[in-house]
Amino acid sequence: MYHKTLIALTTLVSSHVMADSFVIERLEPANWWAGMQHPELQLMLYGKDIARLQPQVQYDGVTLNGVTRTNNPNYLFVNLTLADNVKPGDITLHFRHNGETVLSHNYPLLQRSANSAKRQGFNPADVIYLLAPDRFANGNPGNDNMPGMLEQANRQDDNGRHGGDIAGMQNALPYIANMGYTAIWPMPLTENNQSAYSYHGYAATDLYNIDARYGTNQQYRDFVAAANAKGIKVIQDIILNHIGHQHWWLNDLPDDNWLNKQNILQGAPFVGTNHSRSTIQDPYASKADTELFTDGWFVDTMPDLNQRHPLLATYLIQNSIWWVEYANLAGIREDTYSYADKQFLSEWARRIMLEYPDFNIVGEEWSPNPLIVSYWQRGKQNKDGYVSHTPAMLDFPLYDALLKALTTNEDWNSGWVGLYEMLSNDYVYADPFNLVTFEGNHDAARLFSVLDEDFNLYRMAISYLLTMRGIPQIFYGTEIAMTSPKVRDDGKVRADFPGGWAGDKVNAFTGKGLNATQKNAQQLVKTLLNWRKTATAIHSGKLMHFAPDNGTYTFFRYNDTQTVMVVMNKQAKAVALDLARFSEVLPQGKTATDVITGKSIKLNKQLTIPARGTLVLDIR
Amino acid sequence: MYHKTLIALTTLVSSHVMADSFVIERLEPANWWAGMQHPELQLMLYGKDIARLQPQVQYDGVTLNGVTRTNNPNYLFVNLTLADNVKPGDITLHFRHNGETVLSHNYPLLQRSANSAKRQGFNPADVIYLLAPDRFANGNPGNDNMPGMLEQANRQDDNGRHGGDIAGMQNALPYIANMGYTAIWPMPLTENNQSAYSYHGYAATDLYNIDARYGTNQQYRDFVAAANAKGIKVIQDIILNHIGHQHWWLNDLPDDNWLNKQNILQGAPFVGTNHSRSTIQDPYASKADTELFTDGWFVDTMPDLNQRHPLLATYLIQNSIWWVEYANLAGIREDTYSYADKQFLSEWARRIMLEYPDFNIVGEEWSPNPLIVSYWQRGKQNKDGYVSHTPAMLDFPLYDALLKALTTNEDWNSGWVGLYEMLSNDYVYADPFNLVTFEGNHDAARLFSVLDEDFNLYRMAISYLLTMRGIPQIFYGTEIAMTSPKVRDDGKVRADFPGGWAGDKVNAFTGKGLNATQKNAQQLVKTLLNWRKTATAIHSGKLMHFAPDNGTYTFFRYNDTQTVMVVMNKQAKAVALDLARFSEVLPQGKTATDVITGKSIKLNKQLTIPARGTLVLDIR
Repeated sequence: MYHKTLIALTTLVSSHVMADSFVIERLEPANWWAGMQHPELQLMLYGKDIARLQPQVQYDGVTLNGVTRTNNPNYLFVNLTLADNVKPGDITLHFRHNGETVLSHNYPLLQRSANSAKRQGFNPADVIYLLAPDRFANGNPGNDNMPGMLEQANRQDDNGRHGGDIAGMQNALPYIANMGYTAIWPMPLTENNQSAYSYHGYAATDLYNIDARYGTNQQYRDFVAAANAKGIKVIQDIILNHIGHQHWWLNDLPDDNWLNKQNILQGAPFVGTNHSRSTIQDPYASKADTELFTDGWFVDTMPDLNQRHPLLATYLIQNSIWWVEYANLAGIREDTYSYADKQFLSEWARRIMLEYPDFNIVGEEWSPNPLIVSYWQRGKQNKDGYVSHTPAMLDFPLYDALLKALTTNEDWNSGWVGLYEMLSNDYVYADPFNLVTFEGNHDAARLFSVLDEDFNLYRMAISYLLTMRGIPQIFYGTEIAMTSPKVRDDGKVRADFPGGWAGDKVNAFTGKGLNATQKNAQQLVKTLLNWRKTATAIHSGKLMHFAPDNGTYTFFRYNDTQTVMVVMNKQAKAVALDLARFSEVLPQGKTATDVITGKSIKLNKQLTIPARGTLVLDIR
Repeated sequence: MYHKTLIALTTLVSSHVMADSFVIERLEPANWWAGMQHPELQLMLYGKDIARLQPQVQYDGVTLNGVTRTNNPNYLFVNLTLADNVKPGDITLHFRHNGETVLSHNYPLLQRSANSAKRQGFNPADVIYLLAPDRFANGNPGNDNMPGMLEQANRQDDNGRHGGDIAGMQNALPYIANMGYTAIWPMPLTENNQSAYSYHGYAATDLYNIDARYGTNQQYRDFVAAANAKGIKVIQDIILNHIGHQHWWLNDLPDDNWLNKQNILQGAPFVGTNHSRSTIQDPYASKADTELFTDGWFVDTMPDLNQRHPLLATYLIQNSIWWVEYANLAGIREDTYSYADKQFLSEWARRIMLEYPDFNIVGEEWSPNPLIVSYWQRGKQNKDGYVSHTPAMLDFPLYDALLKALTTNEDWNSGWVGLYEMLSNDYVYADPFNLVTFEGNHDAARLFSVLDEDFNLYRMAISYLLTMRGIPQIFYGTEIAMTSPKVRDDGKVRADFPGGWAGDKVNAFTGKGLNATQKNAQQLVKTLLNWRKTATAIHSGKLMHFAPDNGTYTFFRYNDTQTVMVVMNKQAKAVALDLARFSEVLPQGKTATDVITGKSIKLNKQLTIPARGTLVLDIR
């Protein structure tokens, strides 16, 4: 639709410009790879009046499949088809105008790394460490402020940039590996050259470049390689819904309707999303609300991308694949998932999974309702026929239920029972074992604070998370029981990790200056994480749980060779459990190892759980 | 299974008893009808050593299809097959012993009333009035205490019997009809001859007789006829899960395993249900928990029926059908639905709906989770293949969401949004429009008290209930804003309806002594109920709702001839709505009638909703 009408328009005005004035200011993606499954490649060229040019390609296995022009003459979209057997090399693109070649460009078609297509995505054998790069560790103070980057570092400002970077993350890899995490999810590292509040990373101003204050693209790639060498996978945080309002596109939008509600930029009133994610499946929702959910802007500094625009859709899909291939990623975390166009989301994930069948993608759908979250997971048979290709979703329902269970009193309708009952809904998910479970994140109050700094409850939360079905994610600092206001306060939740800055008095990497609680927390997490690495019953075992009783909640993970029994006791007194109740799943007469203390426990008729205690028993 | 082994046993001991000692102490059902769809009829005979008898039948169209004997020689189950064309009349049963006829009985096979099979069950055009017969109106003080009935009336005792009865309900029919209710659901009227706490009716001691303190079977039947004559349907409250521990069976149980955990009666420890209804669908539930849910007893004075016993299953099915046919019911409300055996529940409802295809049955599944409630509704495609035949369920999820919406502040995750989002789950129900919605019941604190006696919120609750999809049920006394403690207190929730007892100073039937709030409440309910009777958009119209905004929640019911717009404003100030937002559903340029006030409102660009106000607009 964009194609046909616009060619005519461009032709009309093409003679008004001098041939020698053409410059390719941007070409995205800057390279591609030979041997991808999907044969089409769309190049976005940006430069004054560049739409007037006509490209030509001479390269074995590469066919020019037309060009697409828009209402903005400064953009040209070149469509290439790559043959299965195309060889890596530089594709020379010639651009003609008025019968002459006025511009040439060598476009790199690279060799893929070995086994790129067969990479293993993060999975239930992993535990993900989520961190805020600006707040984790400042490995290179020299890049805190960089030429051309608008916001300056100011560590005194909760909402400012603090200087954390890729070098800091790389320096921390021994700590992260030693703790036992096997995957890292950094909040977005792409350029966020916004004049204020840029540290969080969710307002990209360039989707193909790492923010210079974090490092370079090459440093990012090296960081991933270093992480991989330590057995740590890297997951990239990608935002399809919106960009920052200082993204370079905003100076010269590629087309009409590139953004939703694009007339906001021309002074029309701001229209925010209604956040009504339930409209997606609501049989009674109005069209107006349904449209406003996806098309309203998240905030006024984050223009909302219109993924129904086919050129933008392809741009975004290629951008994601480019990062996977370029940086050697093991996964993607997709932000504000349902706010993007749902047909686009389906195609986006399909394209990625086509290239990397064993990859993993986790979407963020912030709802406590499993009916809403499950809609988006691959394999779900949706009532409306919607097909998703995204293998994982963040398990907000279980997160919500876990915190409620730990912070409400035991009663017939509160306490453990809510957590027990939430799991019973798992049949609505196509694959509940591939959900990403978590204890907190960058958008919520810190776990230890939510639990009123009760270490017994903290032990329950961590033990539950690391033994329950799913792929656990732990927020940086949770392992040292970092605190925050209980009411959401992003700047304080994303506080600096102690030891990440030269001169920090407390250093969580070395343990220096940590108080006893923090040390206990760190030891607990480390013990469970390292045990979990080889606990096959946790990675791929079955689950059976027992109705909460007497203030305790008991569940089992089990396979043919290992049984893990987890018991949490919220009572202020010890509770003796009659083990006969668990005879369906508990092997008889075995000796268990208490994973947290390392002690042996002979399993006889009764098992005593200390007051407010947690037992994680490994029975083999 | 019970049949074959037991015949042999009975034969062995049959010669020890004198022939002339046989007496049929009980025969249930006491009659049946010609022309039912299901051809089989099981008669339960009770009498000393009656199992030693061999019945014979001589009646055109009636075949003796064997007998079933149990481990208790005092019971004999006679299986008859009735031909399609069998004529009404007395079936003479002869019972032989040692070659002689020792007993005869004329068994009435009655003519069905005209159109019995085609009766219309309660449906979305109805509004149900739920009442506690003992607490509603005492029409006949002469039956407050009756010979042989253990518990005496004591109006001073919140948990005692107060004397309300069928005569009282019958006297109140003009009031009920005038208010605009079109269906009545009395709490159970069958005999509850328990020595204490018998007034609620859920501990039956005889499933075939009305409690003498309420009246007789004939009076009940006459009451239904009188109600029908005023356009009021009657719904019977039936309990399949349990009986009272002073039921006559408990003196001489019909068989082994007639009750679940029957050994409790022999001194084994009491085993209560775990109330873990989520086990029914939980992919991780233990067998132990799943079994305990249905087989554990509700309380120790209510033995749990084992509906897997085929003789008991048939007994219960016939009992339900008997009441429908005998009393001319328009519906059944089934208590503690999921606590009964689920295969039995399927067959029970199938049998009833086979006889009365347009009937309605509503089950009670007290869960705020639509995934749990929807499992039990007819037409649901369940993941485990379970098939239900019960057309309706009580809508506990929407009840819970309504109260939460009205009692929490407006915020992104509280207030109206919870109610809005709950409805979005409706796609999990096979037929959400046939759910029974409600504002309270005999097991929950009174609506007006839950709403902190805020009349504005009360108006919202009533208006919502009577215009939203579903079949509304209103608890007696709600229409005069009766109060109760906010913490559940059954005896006080089920307080006497004022005017139901001679000498009551306040009389809600006449209005005498009601305060202004009570009068306003009664007028509100009456106005909406009577309007609703002819509001086809409410009975069978579509539903569209709009995401809560600015403290208001707006929805529409509509068909080709009528549009009903409901707006509720929780803000303490008037709110002007831009009507353009509703253009998908709101007819242009019409004049609306404000149903509550009767005033006309011209629908222009804006509609102003008063502070904390509710508008129900009828637009035709």
